[in-house]
Amino acid sequence: MTNNSTICAISTPSGTGGIAVIRVSGKDAFEICDKILISENNKKLSDFQANTIHFGKIISEQKPENSNRQSSIVNRQFIDEVLVSVFRAPHSFTGEDTVEISCHGSVFIQQEILKLLVESGCRLAAAGEFTQRAFLNGKMDLSQAEAVADLIASQSAAAHRLAINQMRGGFSDELKNLRSQLLDFVSLVELELDFSEEDVQFADRENLKNLAINIETKISQLADSFQVGNVLKNGIPVALVGETNVGKSTLLNLLLNEEKAIVSEIHGTTRDVIEDCVNIQGITFRFIDTAGIRQTTDKIENLGIERSFQQIEKASIVLWLVDGTNISERIEWLTEKIFQRAKGKKIILIFNKIDKLSDEELEILEQLFSPFDCRKIKISAKKRLNTELLQQLLLETANVPQISENDIVVTNIRHYEALKNAQNAILRVIDGLKSDISSEFLSQDIRQCMHYLGEITGEITNDDILSNIFEKFCIGK
Amino acid sequence: MTNNSTICAISTPSGTGGIAVIRVSGKDAFEICDKILISENNKKLSDFQANTIHFGKIISEQKPENSNRQSSIVNRQFIDEVLVSVFRAPHSFTGEDTVEISCHGSVFIQQEILKLLVESGCRLAAAGEFTQRAFLNGKMDLSQAEAVADLIASQSAAAHRLAINQMRGGFSDELKNLRSQLLDFVSLVELELDFSEEDVQFADRENLKNLAINIETKISQLADSFQVGNVLKNGIPVALVGETNVGKSTLLNLLLNEEKAIVSEIHGTTRDVIEDCVNIQGITFRFIDTAGIRQTTDKIENLGIERSFQQIEKASIVLWLVDGTNISERIEWLTEKIFQRAKGKKIILIFNKIDKLSDEELEILEQLFSPFDCRKIKISAKKRLNTELLQQLLLETANVPQISENDIVVTNIRHYEALKNAQNAILRVIDGLKSDISSEFLSQDIRQCMHYLGEITGEITNDDILSNIFEKFCIGK
Repeated sequence: MTNNSTICAISTPSGTGGIAVIRVSGKDAFEICDKILISENNKKLSDFQANTIHFGKIISEQKPENSNRQSSIVNRQFIDEVLVSVFRAPHSFTGEDTVEISCHGSVFIQQEILKLLVESGCRLAAAGEFTQRAFLNGKMDLSQAEAVADLIASQSAAAHRLAINQMRGGFSDELKNLRSQLLDFVSLVELELDFSEEDVQFADRENLKNLAINIETKISQLADSFQVGNVLKNGIPVALVGETNVGKSTLLNLLLNEEKAIVSEIHGTTRDVIEDCVNIQGITFRFIDTAGIRQTTDKIENLGIERSFQQIEKASIVLWLVDGTNISERIEWLTEKIFQRAKGKKIILIFNKIDKLSDEELEILEQLFSPFDCRKIKISAKKRLNTELLQQLLLETANVPQISENDIVVTNIRHYEALKNAQNAILRVIDGLKSDISSEFLSQDIRQCMHYLGEITGEITNDDILSNIFEKFCIGK
Repeated sequence: MTNNSTICAISTPSGTGGIAVIRVSGKDAFEICDKILISENNKKLSDFQANTIHFGKIISEQKPENSNRQSSIVNRQFIDEVLVSVFRAPHSFTGEDTVEISCHGSVFIQQEILKLLVESGCRLAAAGEFTQRAFLNGKMDLSQAEAVADLIASQSAAAHRLAINQMRGGFSDELKNLRSQLLDFVSLVELELDFSEEDVQFADRENLKNLAINIETKISQLADSFQVGNVLKNGIPVALVGETNVGKSTLLNLLLNEEKAIVSEIHGTTRDVIEDCVNIQGITFRFIDTAGIRQTTDKIENLGIERSFQQIEKASIVLWLVDGTNISERIEWLTEKIFQRAKGKKIILIFNKIDKLSDEELEILEQLFSPFDCRKIKISAKKRLNTELLQQLLLETANVPQISENDIVVTNIRHYEALKNAQNAILRVIDGLKSDISSEFLSQDIRQCMHYLGEITGEITNDDILSNIFEKFCIGK
């Protein structure tokens, strides 16, 4: 797993910018960088103090590629003027000697420096390899390393908050705490094994049971938090359903654009837009693409409707959009259908185009839909009437608990699965205590519970788990 | 022009990456960053030594935006764990106190930190404002500042080389040298003005003439270098012309893809692809889009041909591509036409699809085209026969002088125009000396020459010139 090679990668986003940062980490980081760098006063990087920054020139001692052209012995080429930051093991992100080269942000220069580093003995870093080394060198546990990837990918305030909390290690501490309790537990039980012929019980079974129930409660709370965590991280699935021409895309664009307007206030930042994701006060709503239901005159269920209805099943909130100015004959029938299919989901009934309705017409509308018991709101997407209210309603309907600094919320399906496995093991322990099984079996189940908890933090791990985790990182981190 | 505000911007390329760097520069840089940063041991940034790096946490003391939701007094939010680099005036890029915040490369985090900085008293930097401040604070002259932008934009080895040379100041030194010679010159001449009634000549006219001629030669050399500089910076315009179905796009894609293959060897770097630009050993060839000439049976000049022919005029190299397996009736006539229109340009006649030709057929082909005196090459774009030879031929035909480290080449049209103006002024000086004009007029012309040279380095400048130059920069540099 561990290896001694020195790795390098561009750590800043790809493309052209003012500056770019190339990271070099490993035991030969200083020596390799010295080969391509002339620093102030011709000092070597190893001469510099840790955590200091120095001006330098990147040079290439290579001969020009084309020996045909009149190569007037231009052996030394200046590539760029750079700043180099020097970090010394173990006080760096990776825990290894590290050099960060801050160069001009031309793609050409970035590639040239990377090429020079590789020619001088570096290996190009694999995805997430810097963070993987940080894990392997004990700078962070596995769940913290995973949080780094989540942090970089975070697009909303909520997802960001979860990742930051996880990175700061609260979750890890909780798991370590549980494992240490289990360790005390199993030590007592295993002590009995040594004296098995004498049939002694060092561990009071009642105490043990209480402890196991306690641990199960904690594990179960963590596992349950995944529902919230998943929603916060991946967004709340919303189906916006309506007949054609009721203003679906106008409404969606409005919600999307209001967000974009906020984003574009900060100049010079382009955003990786996730299609049809709307961020309302830090909570992501993920709009599921549904085709409009065609206004056919007959009430025969057609494929188009069925497809829209299938999408409803993926959603946790259903927005049923009705054009107040154009109530089709079958609207009641359709609404009933929606309510049947969306059973258990949260439905918001939206009357659109209300700017074109008289008070009388509004009243008729309300009466028509009064049999349907759900949240209702009247808007005009075009005139932006009540659209802020709609956002508030979405937030209220979602009812996502606010996560504060110290809340521990599981967001990672790998962690969730490990927790579920741990929970099963500890439940077996509780059952075993009730039916008074032998210390041997008891100890096995406790050990298994510990194993699964250890998988989360990486105390228990293997190459498959690791490569699975780190290949999802970006290169350069 | 100068102002006291402290500016901030994301300096790394936009988008998501492992890390991103946010730059803060100005007299309040430390104070402002202290508001959003908790550093190790709670030290203030002003306590840290220059050119050192420190771990810290970015915090937001803001209340949550939405006061409706149960805002459980979460006043302090952690935004990210970062590294901050501290630079002190005047030893920074801008010459001002500067902080560089290296954060996790999530777009969300980048925006949050930028927002916090603005809320704490920073102004978002305008395009190129960091470099502009470097210029205004005397860290570099104007031509060096312009070289920074060129460096960042450089896509080829040649363009990069030119920008690096210019940034390192060889051009500036040359101009300063010329200006100081002119200053000695004009001092003598202006001394005569003080004694004008006595009709003395302090400056020996013959010496002055030699000096002026000398200076004119240097200025003229610099101005002439713009032709090469422009080609190296912007690429050599090449028209690839041929009838339809002769293999134009196959050949173009081949040339483009061979380059891409080289580029993609370095993983993790995406390249800002410039459409139809081919980089051959550091020289950029810019392919001009020409429609294929349709194979109509009549010889009537049609619009399609005329359009292709017009494009030829923009090129300096014309590739006339002929399908060796399918010689049209009018090929001789067309070739003659091409040669007429491309008079003065370099023509390469390319026979394509030679893999399908017998030796006999090849001989007939050669004979048919023997009246046309130009470089000829036989290739098969599909089978990649002789395509490397074609690249070599392109390089030879372009015949771009290799630029070595200390060559001074003008690449900037603004500089070229200033040089031309300076040249005209010094030519007037030479004429004036020949016709023995008064010291007064002589001095005026010399001063004008100095003025234009000073415009290049920025010794003479105004707000219009500056804003014109720096608005072309990217934000964050």
